[in-house]
Amino acid sequence: MTTPLLDRRDVDFLIHTWLKAGGDRETTDAVLDLSETLATQAFLPHFKRNDVEEPELVDGEVRICPAIGEALKQYAELGLFSAGFPDELGGLGLPYLISTASFAFFAAANVATAAYPMLTVANARLIAAFGTAAQVETFAKPQIEGRWFGTMCLSEPQAGSSLADVRTRAVAEGADALGERYRLFGNKMWISGGDQDVSDNIVHLVLAKVPNADGTLPEGTAGISLFIVPKLLPDGTRNDVTVAGLNHKMGYRGTANCLLNFGETGGAVGWIVGAPGEGLRQMFQMMNEARIGVGVGAAALGYRGYRLAVDYARERLQGRPPGRRSGPPVAIIEHPDVRRMLLQQKAYVEGALALCFYCARLVDTAEASPDDAALLGLLTPVAKTWPSEYGLAANDIAIQVHGGYGYTRDFDVEQLWRDNRLNPIHEGTTGVQGMDLVGRKILADGSGLPVLAARIARTAEAAEAVPGLAVHARALSEAWRSVVATTEALQGEDRRTVLDNATAFLWAFGHVVTAWLWLDQAVAAEALTDRDLADGKAWACRFFFECELPKVDAWLALVAARSDVASGAPTRIF
Amino acid sequence: MTTPLLDRRDVDFLIHTWLKAGGDRETTDAVLDLSETLATQAFLPHFKRNDVEEPELVDGEVRICPAIGEALKQYAELGLFSAGFPDELGGLGLPYLISTASFAFFAAANVATAAYPMLTVANARLIAAFGTAAQVETFAKPQIEGRWFGTMCLSEPQAGSSLADVRTRAVAEGADALGERYRLFGNKMWISGGDQDVSDNIVHLVLAKVPNADGTLPEGTAGISLFIVPKLLPDGTRNDVTVAGLNHKMGYRGTANCLLNFGETGGAVGWIVGAPGEGLRQMFQMMNEARIGVGVGAAALGYRGYRLAVDYARERLQGRPPGRRSGPPVAIIEHPDVRRMLLQQKAYVEGALALCFYCARLVDTAEASPDDAALLGLLTPVAKTWPSEYGLAANDIAIQVHGGYGYTRDFDVEQLWRDNRLNPIHEGTTGVQGMDLVGRKILADGSGLPVLAARIARTAEAAEAVPGLAVHARALSEAWRSVVATTEALQGEDRRTVLDNATAFLWAFGHVVTAWLWLDQAVAAEALTDRDLADGKAWACRFFFECELPKVDAWLALVAARSDVASGAPTRIF
Repeated sequence: MTTPLLDRRDVDFLIHTWLKAGGDRETTDAVLDLSETLATQAFLPHFKRNDVEEPELVDGEVRICPAIGEALKQYAELGLFSAGFPDELGGLGLPYLISTASFAFFAAANVATAAYPMLTVANARLIAAFGTAAQVETFAKPQIEGRWFGTMCLSEPQAGSSLADVRTRAVAEGADALGERYRLFGNKMWISGGDQDVSDNIVHLVLAKVPNADGTLPEGTAGISLFIVPKLLPDGTRNDVTVAGLNHKMGYRGTANCLLNFGETGGAVGWIVGAPGEGLRQMFQMMNEARIGVGVGAAALGYRGYRLAVDYARERLQGRPPGRRSGPPVAIIEHPDVRRMLLQQKAYVEGALALCFYCARLVDTAEASPDDAALLGLLTPVAKTWPSEYGLAANDIAIQVHGGYGYTRDFDVEQLWRDNRLNPIHEGTTGVQGMDLVGRKILADGSGLPVLAARIARTAEAAEAVPGLAVHARALSEAWRSVVATTEALQGEDRRTVLDNATAFLWAFGHVVTAWLWLDQAVAAEALTDRDLADGKAWACRFFFECELPKVDAWLALVAARSDVASGAPTRIF
Repeated sequence: MTTPLLDRRDVDFLIHTWLKAGGDRETTDAVLDLSETLATQAFLPHFKRNDVEEPELVDGEVRICPAIGEALKQYAELGLFSAGFPDELGGLGLPYLISTASFAFFAAANVATAAYPMLTVANARLIAAFGTAAQVETFAKPQIEGRWFGTMCLSEPQAGSSLADVRTRAVAEGADALGERYRLFGNKMWISGGDQDVSDNIVHLVLAKVPNADGTLPEGTAGISLFIVPKLLPDGTRNDVTVAGLNHKMGYRGTANCLLNFGETGGAVGWIVGAPGEGLRQMFQMMNEARIGVGVGAAALGYRGYRLAVDYARERLQGRPPGRRSGPPVAIIEHPDVRRMLLQQKAYVEGALALCFYCARLVDTAEASPDDAALLGLLTPVAKTWPSEYGLAANDIAIQVHGGYGYTRDFDVEQLWRDNRLNPIHEGTTGVQGMDLVGRKILADGSGLPVLAARIARTAEAAEAVPGLAVHARALSEAWRSVVATTEALQGEDRRTVLDNATAFLWAFGHVVTAWLWLDQAVAAEALTDRDLADGKAWACRFFFECELPKVDAWLALVAARSDVASGAPTRIF
């Protein structure tokens, strides 16, 4: 029997019992059934092929594993590109939460293939949000139909996380029915899906700067604008976009990752989205979703590794439990340390998925609720980072449960680990997320903190009433008080000292948030009639509170001490 | 310029200044110079080839990357197989510490190639320790000369860590000049170097059971004996050993890893080493060294990743320090979080190398000092595990420092991470080491604890006298008191509950031991005239005490609480 990609009971629990947010249950069930089936039947079978049959550059064009195209054709035919878009754009108006849950199945099955629609949908949403009607019709619609795919072109070889240093230039050359037209010149690095041979066209969304009158580029991020640069122009001719190289990655290999040159022969034609100088703001408006998307992918990879480890631990016979020296070997799930490793994975991956679902739900409610919007901003760096780091940690443990077998390519867990290693890097590294959390979301803004405080208090109050959970409620309240005390101590501190320990704060904050959501899940699970599921939530919650939450003290102590051990160390010592 | 494999100043510091154990300085320097040069010139150049040109099974024989054979030929010619053996066996009588330091350079350069001599030397040492003169002459000598290579055949497909379940049988068939002769029948799994085409012969050391009179195999580990089973018999004919398959690993690929069948056509000829039933005792006598060897390899892989990350961080220009928004980009080493990642790696890899060197030194002194022997037994599971887990963590951070580039196969850090992932698995998984530490070394034996306590007290006392270190001395003493209190609380506890949290105890114990050695290094470094080196030790020590040692509380709390969260959770919840 094939191991399920995710535990469907858990997904249903999170959406309906916990978040009470499934919308129309029949539609939701149908979408999730479809997603699980398609992911299993069309995505999972080429999981390993995607690793072995890497994208190739042939005569300047990228060829990818043909199974990707076949799977995405079905994905399009079943309306999964469009499902999250409103009716008038041909979609079902599916809540972002349900789109996210659907995506989790595909990411668990084959994240490298699932990346193409994820990027395409993000691209189309951006054009739909900020583009003109003609741009939406010409460039978003074909993506919503799954005929064209999209990319996001932010990084450049000399400017990874530092977008202020973008050097791609866009020179105005008049206007046409599609808007103000420009010619783009520059190089874009790390472009996922930057070229491939399975969609009819590719829509690049490119960050570039419009030069000043004297030809220089504006300094900083203010001068950045966003441009639609298709691979094939509306008249069917090739635009001036060429593939300068393919990056050969350790994992996530099926997603072609390119170095693209724009404007080698006359300039790539592009149309600006919205007003000049708005590029970064537009991109960041979509960034919450993109970052939650990375988190969901990471959680899903961790989740599949966990399910594989559980099945392996049930089947693999070896050794005897402590205190027994003879008799037949037992399944390794009987060994305490193996069971610890399973619980640890469960606490990580179900916790990560719950966090991402919670934030996806906030995306749906943010427009109507300023509180939810503030909380979404605060939690997004955590939703990006925590699943990326702990989903990866879960994949590491899944290998360990498999022993030597897990280290071989005959099993899937090693590839899941390699695939997942990308997630702490792209869409803003863990270090960048730490600075976003501390610098922007806590010190500069701060509006999300009281909302979070109120929700944590509400969960703790509910848990106080449940005998087995009251002890955790008190631990959570205490941990939260430590977080608050630390953030208060940071106010007015020298910015450099604060950012020295931003990553440590992110770890602490992420663990407290996850502990809160675990307790909240455990409270909700009390009502379940499925006792295996309910008890699983209770045990994993207990594990998190006993084995994980206590780690917070060490991280917070470092922040509270305003340790300058990182920035103070002179570079000559290395 | 090529990044050095290890920091030679650090290696010299550890051996001479810190451990004061270099023996004859001229010989030591010559061996280390030679090792560094050969590793750089003959091992490093095929680091990536070893990953790409994987061992192949062709007509029942394994072919490995030819560069391995060329490198090991030079390794043999320069006397590095023999260096650690006494004069009468053709060696230099090099202390184990110096052999270990030499090996660290080769492991850093190319661990998959270095594994062949490591296994060969371990094999020859075992035969030299327990074999007859004829066995030493026939089977150990050619290995000491580097003409034949050796393997260790312990695991079987159904019995990974559980040697009691070994099913390979050895049937007596008389005696000859080489000892009591047997015929072996069985399958051995995960045999590193199990076959290859670069040495003249292969000597397998095989654990097997001699059947009882009724044909059954003795139960448990008591009936296990050790046999010498060469690939080619002394008369030059092929022994009955065949390669049933090659394992395709995620990393460490150059080391051919085989499933071997013994006795498919009549029985593989083998000679017993020592008396029947002594196999496990003999093997375990060598196990300390084998486990330290794994630790050194893991530390070395982490160390090279760290050096690469330092060089990358010095060269890569991106972004600006906090508080500066314009001007040219700076080297990323200027960013606090990057510097934190470098310090963290430094604390892990230099700490891991120091731990392994300390234990290697104990191997040299254990025979003359019962205290050192007891301490060696206690620290060996830590020397195996801590570098494996934290060397791997350092490799993970090295990727992160490189950003997207680190995720590509154009850089070395991703392969180092993949190679290192084997180390927490082989030679006893982390979970097995935790049970060894708690069950055997602390609860059953316990003789190492007072020795360790005395040495920690000595270091703390010395550090008290140094202004910058006194605060760490107190933290170390306090952490040690917590460890002692926890071990005392475990005495007389139910064995199952104790082993539930053996891994958590191992983490805590490993961190306290490493903190002790960091403080001890920092004290020794005070005397250095090389201030960059000395300050580096002081900053890394401070980092470890501020950012790592505080994690111990969370682990110990779990052990002290005798949490049954692992063994108590019913299997139905997964």
